[in-house]
Amino acid sequence: MRALVLEEKGKLSLRDVPGPAAAGPGEVRIAVHTVGICGSDVHYYTHGRIGPFVVEAPMILGHEAAGTVIETGPGVTHLKPGDRVCMEPGIPDPASRAAKMGLYNVDPAVRFWATPPVDGCLMPEVVHPAAFTYRLPDSVSFAEGAMVEPFAIGMQAALRARIRPGDVAVVTGAGPIGMMTALAALAGGCAKVIVADLAQPKLDIIGAYDGIETVNIRRTPAAAAVAEATGGWGADVVFECSGAAPAILGLPALACPGGAVVLVGMPVDPVPMDIVGLQAKELRIETVFRYANVYDRAIALMGSGKVDLKPLISATLPFEDSIAAFDRAVEARDADVKLQITLPG
Amino acid sequence: MRALVLEEKGKLSLRDVPGPAAAGPGEVRIAVHTVGICGSDVHYYTHGRIGPFVVEAPMILGHEAAGTVIETGPGVTHLKPGDRVCMEPGIPDPASRAAKMGLYNVDPAVRFWATPPVDGCLMPEVVHPAAFTYRLPDSVSFAEGAMVEPFAIGMQAALRARIRPGDVAVVTGAGPIGMMTALAALAGGCAKVIVADLAQPKLDIIGAYDGIETVNIRRTPAAAAVAEATGGWGADVVFECSGAAPAILGLPALACPGGAVVLVGMPVDPVPMDIVGLQAKELRIETVFRYANVYDRAIALMGSGKVDLKPLISATLPFEDSIAAFDRAVEARDADVKLQITLPG
Amino acid sequence: MRALVLEEKGKLSLRDVPGPAAAGPGEVRIAVHTVGICGSDVHYYTHGRIGPFVVEAPMILGHEAAGTVIETGPGVTHLKPGDRVCMEPGIPDPASRAAKMGLYNVDPAVRFWATPPVDGCLMPEVVHPAAFTYRLPDSVSFAEGAMVEPFAIGMQAALRARIRPGDVAVVTGAGPIGMMTALAALAGGCAKVIVADLAQPKLDIIGAYDGIETVNIRRTPAAAAVAEATGGWGADVVFECSGAAPAILGLPALACPGGAVVLVGMPVDPVPMDIVGLQAKELRIETVFRYANVYDRAIALMGSGKVDLKPLISATLPFEDSIAAFDRAVEARDADVKLQITLPG
Amino acid sequence: MRALVLEEKGKLSLRDVPGPAAAGPGEVRIAVHTVGICGSDVHYYTHGRIGPFVVEAPMILGHEAAGTVIETGPGVTHLKPGDRVCMEPGIPDPASRAAKMGLYNVDPAVRFWATPPVDGCLMPEVVHPAAFTYRLPDSVSFAEGAMVEPFAIGMQAALRARIRPGDVAVVTGAGPIGMMTALAALAGGCAKVIVADLAQPKLDIIGAYDGIETVNIRRTPAAAAVAEATGGWGADVVFECSGAAPAILGLPALACPGGAVVLVGMPVDPVPMDIVGLQAKELRIETVFRYANVYDRAIALMGSGKVDLKPLISATLPFEDSIAAFDRAVEARDADVKLQITLPG
Repeated sequence: MRALVLEEKGKLSLRDVPGPAAAGPGEVRIAVHTVGICGSDVHYYTHGRIGPFVVEAPMILGHEAAGTVIETGPGVTHLKPGDRVCMEPGIPDPASRAAKMGLYNVDPAVRFWATPPVDGCLMPEVVHPAAFTYRLPDSVSFAEGAMVEPFAIGMQAALRARIRPGDVAVVTGAGPIGMMTALAALAGGCAKVIVADLAQPKLDIIGAYDGIETVNIRRTPAAAAVAEATGGWGADVVFECSGAAPAILGLPALACPGGAVVLVGMPVDPVPMDIVGLQAKELRIETVFRYANVYDRAIALMGSGKVDLKPLISATLPFEDSIAAFDRAVEARDADVKLQITLPG
Repeated sequence: MRALVLEEKGKLSLRDVPGPAAAGPGEVRIAVHTVGICGSDVHYYTHGRIGPFVVEAPMILGHEAAGTVIETGPGVTHLKPGDRVCMEPGIPDPASRAAKMGLYNVDPAVRFWATPPVDGCLMPEVVHPAAFTYRLPDSVSFAEGAMVEPFAIGMQAALRARIRPGDVAVVTGAGPIGMMTALAALAGGCAKVIVADLAQPKLDIIGAYDGIETVNIRRTPAAAAVAEATGGWGADVVFECSGAAPAILGLPALACPGGAVVLVGMPVDPVPMDIVGLQAKELRIETVFRYANVYDRAIALMGSGKVDLKPLISATLPFEDSIAAFDRAVEARDADVKLQITLPG
Repeated sequence: MRALVLEEKGKLSLRDVPGPAAAGPGEVRIAVHTVGICGSDVHYYTHGRIGPFVVEAPMILGHEAAGTVIETGPGVTHLKPGDRVCMEPGIPDPASRAAKMGLYNVDPAVRFWATPPVDGCLMPEVVHPAAFTYRLPDSVSFAEGAMVEPFAIGMQAALRARIRPGDVAVVTGAGPIGMMTALAALAGGCAKVIVADLAQPKLDIIGAYDGIETVNIRRTPAAAAVAEATGGWGADVVFECSGAAPAILGLPALACPGGAVVLVGMPVDPVPMDIVGLQAKELRIETVFRYANVYDRAIALMGSGKVDLKPLISATLPFEDSIAAFDRAVEARDADVKLQITLPG
Repeated sequence: MRALVLEEKGKLSLRDVPGPAAAGPGEVRIAVHTVGICGSDVHYYTHGRIGPFVVEAPMILGHEAAGTVIETGPGVTHLKPGDRVCMEPGIPDPASRAAKMGLYNVDPAVRFWATPPVDGCLMPEVVHPAAFTYRLPDSVSFAEGAMVEPFAIGMQAALRARIRPGDVAVVTGAGPIGMMTALAALAGGCAKVIVADLAQPKLDIIGAYDGIETVNIRRTPAAAAVAEATGGWGADVVFECSGAAPAILGLPALACPGGAVVLVGMPVDPVPMDIVGLQAKELRIETVFRYANVYDRAIALMGSGKVDLKPLISATLPFEDSIAAFDRAVEARDADVKLQITLPG
């Protein structure tokens, strides 16, 4: 069957690859319907690597996917052919110490779609463990199903924050993950979320949601906006989603005494942090690495209507235009949040 | 000035009492605008006592109040005359061990409005510590401001639950506190809240909110409804708000493995609990006593529009009809959630 | 090979059974050295059942075991033949929802040694998943290694309590699990642990440890002793290990405001709890079901010398005297804490 | 009465000052017995400032103190003349938002002994709030009582870490606070604590405690020692007590997946942190600012014998030699952990 293959840095092709084997014990075969393009897919395309992960052989891209179960392997009980599903792309070693603790995302042995040398899912069919395949409620479309993966990162950030009902949160950085985090925080109990960025088109998109306020830091420092919104007290939770050094240095000014900071953005190099500033308010700093045990709850929030991700889907292109879709993603237009590809059949 | 005085069990009068002294250091004087009637006010009226608290002398009733600051004492900086406010009715000893730990609600020395022998606030003016007086945003009316107190109990329950974004919650018991708890849990991060009761009029009121499902346990066992809604897994959090023995005995069947139970309802006598059933799922059980440090966050959720308590205000009566209002509250009509009294001037 | 088989209620035999198959992928074969006798083993012997678990076919007893690895299956990397080990007796389904969350103890599909219909380990050799087999440091003997299982329950109680350094704890009930819990709590950060029981010989055994105080409730009410020891404030954590109704009803009097209660003891029937009493101090109640992810930390505490369980090993009998050992356990002598059986070879 | 006064940067004098007023409501007067010299006292002496706190007028030094109550003001019930006590040196505004939440250490209005412009306690008598004055058990000497203050910082670090029984901890930096933290972590539930530094005399002092291992990082990288001690898994908790940039950059290598880092050391300037490294293990980072609600538990651990701080008292000098004591402290001999001054009478 055909797949979108990253042959090497800078070179994509849509070509035939062997299809997956039959579904083994505990596995399901899925007809892929929709796949979203992630910044990491684009980065492998443009740079050929992310940190220690280097594209050294052709690799199928894509890890944000929804589809339909078409075959169940032995022992699968909670899914059946015809079920509409989305798939969690990281598969841990269940016998690992981290997995036994429920922290399977930090299992060093995890195999993650479209992370070299593991193939992704931009192809018509995949076989996947049933334990990492989740049924979608009728109210959640395939397009939204393919948004669960990026939303799961925002959910993990919201979970790690330990939001308390009525918290005020700030998100620095309005990229796709910043937006997902803002929506997860809002649905997850915050009274209000303030999103700070310098790109007005992005702020306009996320600011259209009820409960989200925006601040364009070209005009107003984030700290001033937060002080204004909180009577000078500071935000209960600060989600750092920009990865930008000035934002990271300025974190203590945004948080309230005893508050929390969640580091979601990933700066390539070490960046200076104001440790004494963090200490003076005795802040707690959480970090996020992908997600674990959040798909169910992400889907529940989408299914109940508390979270609507449809406004973040900027364009949907057919599989045969995959390479054009990636080239559009490389352009990184400010008004593009998420591009999706639909598979034929 | 005039006040609503519980002279003794069963006897209310609206009569003159001495007004409060001038606002001392750290205090404010408030013109009371709206006061809600609480079940405890009614209980003192009908029974003359609640547990160890006995009405042994005339006592002014009322502790759910909003009003306007008319005077500030020395050292008050965050409030000024004209501010619209609501008041937290319990005043702890700030030097107590519990208060130092932030648990001022369980300080044995706390003085609480309309809990014998402490007078309440059903009178035109009160003096109160500024630290326990909270400014209302413009979007929150006096009527809603007087709802903050009962809502705070639901908020405390939601906080103690440590809700994680996307949780499914069940509330057993759709009295006013059950309703407040359901709304706090929903705003506080739950994807969905299922409310169980046997009084259909109450279920109709709370079921009118988006995100809240109801189950009439005359027709469907709560456990069956929860199993249906959660694919057999159980609810992440169960809020027990009925105080009813069968509900309490049946708690283990409602919760998921590793889930939480919050005991909000107050059964008068000890009730049997299925300890082995609780253990088999390794449930965590939290209890609630009033609230601490929740007024700010309750007001934030109301101010941002995430929580709308107006549909729960069943009727508003003028101060001169206070006794009639209490007599209506004694009737305990199913469709009455909250009765409020407005003060003149 | 020979095994201790519970043929039916009341009838034990030491007879030949088929040995285990070869170690499969991720498994190890272990020469069993020492096995402790647990109250549950004895209960199956005397009653033929525990709750829903009924002995309907012959079953090998024993689940508290240490031994030596003699074979490793494919893919096992952290163990090798010759390693001295102890074994965690419950094996979950790693693909279950509970196991993915790290709560594998509450996975309904868990298979647990010597819980019908699963055989135990009172036999010379067993095959076990390497992921649930833990290496013992040189400083921990086989006899102590076989104590890890019961100590793990005390550890789970201590973990669920979320002890803070310097807490004062109370343990009600000085049976083996009460003792294990007291030692785990003490090593786990408590400044002091008070153990209450009415059997003086048991109190003498546990009271011999530094940091543990005892109160004989025939002479002094537990609440009085706790009040005395805490200046009237109450214990930070109360571990209920008796399963006795009066102790459970009296829990609120033992705890401090905002404190925690851990329900370890398992009363057969529902028992009355003073919910209003628990609420008035806003207590948190935790429950315990076996353990998860505690073997490593239990062994670490034993290996570093912070926990010494040797004084709790009352007698050690050879495998050929297993039936006599069980009959002694049935006698339930006050001065017997733990009986152990050593395998030949 | 005479006091040790820092007249200005670099100039100490032992001279007469006015004694304190009578004990007011809720206050006690204390005859000071022992005062420890803290690094901050020395820093004000040598540099005249710490960050924003500048010595602009003569200030009495000292904030680590124990003594005897000699007078109680109105309303004091838990203390009486003759009680041996130690004093918590920071007094918050109890009406502040932070204090109401139990986080009085981060109340911006806190007044702290020997922090400009607030006088310290190196004088024969002080008046102090009873709520911040703690009785010492008979088993705790005045000298140890004056160690409670620095130990409280270690306790705060151990509390913020949320140690779980059996954790393995690492402490980077063996200064006085690193030592206190190591002992608090060990008593607070760790199975083992590894202390890393490059000064062998300090390592010898702290390494003499059971349960504490040391690594001289001149010879062995801390990460190698931790990997060795934990089978390659990493430490559950890393306490960063050096404030040194290389240690801070290297934190991710020391911690286990899902572990915690507590930032105790205070680097003057922002320092680079490896955020991606912290994220890859999804570490939680806590910060510490002084302490709140830890004196009781610190004293409990010292009183029960679980923590012995006497070996850390390097020398004791009489009040009349206070200036010499400070000059010795300025020398910063490796083998000096804590110098104390005893008051006459």
